[in-house]
Amino acid sequence: MEELVVIKVGGNIIDNEDALKSFLTDFSAINKHKILIHGGGKIATEISKGLGIEAQMVEGRRITDAETLKIVTMVYGGLINKNIVASLQTKKCNAIGLTGADGAVVVANKRPIKNGIDYGYVGDIKEVKSSVLTTLINAGFTPIIAPLSVDENGSLLNTNADTMASEIACAMSKQYKVSLVYCFELQGVLRDFEDKNSVINEINPGTYNQLKEEGVISKGMIPKLDNAFDAINKGVDAVIIAHADHLLAIINEQKKLGTVLKK
Amino acid sequence: MEELVVIKVGGNIIDNEDALKSFLTDFSAINKHKILIHGGGKIATEISKGLGIEAQMVEGRRITDAETLKIVTMVYGGLINKNIVASLQTKKCNAIGLTGADGAVVVANKRPIKNGIDYGYVGDIKEVKSSVLTTLINAGFTPIIAPLSVDENGSLLNTNADTMASEIACAMSKQYKVSLVYCFELQGVLRDFEDKNSVINEINPGTYNQLKEEGVISKGMIPKLDNAFDAINKGVDAVIIAHADHLLAIINEQKKLGTVLKK
Repeated sequence: MEELVVIKVGGNIIDNEDALKSFLTDFSAINKHKILIHGGGKIATEISKGLGIEAQMVEGRRITDAETLKIVTMVYGGLINKNIVASLQTKKCNAIGLTGADGAVVVANKRPIKNGIDYGYVGDIKEVKSSVLTTLINAGFTPIIAPLSVDENGSLLNTNADTMASEIACAMSKQYKVSLVYCFELQGVLRDFEDKNSVINEINPGTYNQLKEEGVISKGMIPKLDNAFDAINKGVDAVIIAHADHLLAIINEQKKLGTVLKK
Repeated sequence: MEELVVIKVGGNIIDNEDALKSFLTDFSAINKHKILIHGGGKIATEISKGLGIEAQMVEGRRITDAETLKIVTMVYGGLINKNIVASLQTKKCNAIGLTGADGAVVVANKRPIKNGIDYGYVGDIKEVKSSVLTTLINAGFTPIIAPLSVDENGSLLNTNADTMASEIACAMSKQYKVSLVYCFELQGVLRDFEDKNSVINEINPGTYNQLKEEGVISKGMIPKLDNAFDAINKGVDAVIIAHADHLLAIINEQKKLGTVLKK
């Protein structure tokens, strides 16, 4: 089986011009098949504010109304995605930018109203058409995917980028040996949040339960890790949570940096 | 040689929800290989206004400054392109949305300052990589292209959609028998602008000169037709200027509607 690296890069890096540039230089140098899923960052919020559209929140969760859907389609699918693609093209990476609508690669259901909360145009992923991505990869393209899915009525849907990355990694693991890398601004999962060097090098389902019982793993991290173990159970070879600066060392030099999740 | 239809649809149709829906239904029913190039429409101007960015004009021409480039990247490359793609996917057309940056399919030079006018981030097309489009078509995709090109520094550039369509048609004519169709809101090139039924059915270089001498073809139409004849000289089989409503009749039923330009 050929190797494929599915990488998620989040808003903190997208928002920082220098960090993004450096990340894309590293990404382009990865010597394996690769797919990038990018998050949104603050740009959408800024554009919304500029247009006088107020972010609607219900119980701390953002609601995607029709106007907000337009904004995220513009910003995620247009501005961020196409600038990443254009930048990668100068770095000899033959990038092609996609949303879930392109080739209907990520089909979702509009999230039903739950406990009286209507999240609006938010997608819960139903199917990733791995054949679309495989076709593009075999044709020499590197897919760059914005966090938008499409439903069967042709509506774009705002979709969590972490979930997009994990669902894509799972679907691709039928044809590839897949590593899923979450790049962020910390060195990995930390044993002590105050100590940036307290990275937990490896977590397996046994140690994960132990770490949760000890209270070492904080609440915010639990959904991310649950998601990651779910991906592993569905066929992904490894999930790595690491600092964006370490991406190349981890992939090209097989250095043990960040936190590796394995079966 | 297999046939390929390259279709340009303009802002007037993009701006009208019903007209666009009807156009996309027809487009999806075309029984040949096809590529769509779409214009911008008024949405970019509305979003710019909303954000307080004033359109800069010099001698009647719009200047694309850095803020305007962001807007057109969002609106053309994101909002319009991805909504067209999502809609076509519901009509069994396996659309994939592209800008010139994706696969570096349309590479341009930033227009140099001419007669003291700096047009800003505007692209003059240098190269269309037809192999990228052929690869996508052979893989079963229908390319939907926004009027944005990319330069060698990785900057996106605002690009005239008519020119995009004609350059793409020319490049594709190496591998396909290409018809280039400009869809707009009139029945074709009119002999008498007041009489909507005075469509000139066919123009060749000889009759074109005559029509220009007679003053039948108006100033505004001349650059469009020059462009069209240029495409024919570069290998495009036919250029058709027609009402969007006649697209299917022209292509699938070979009906003689609109104005056909031939050698």
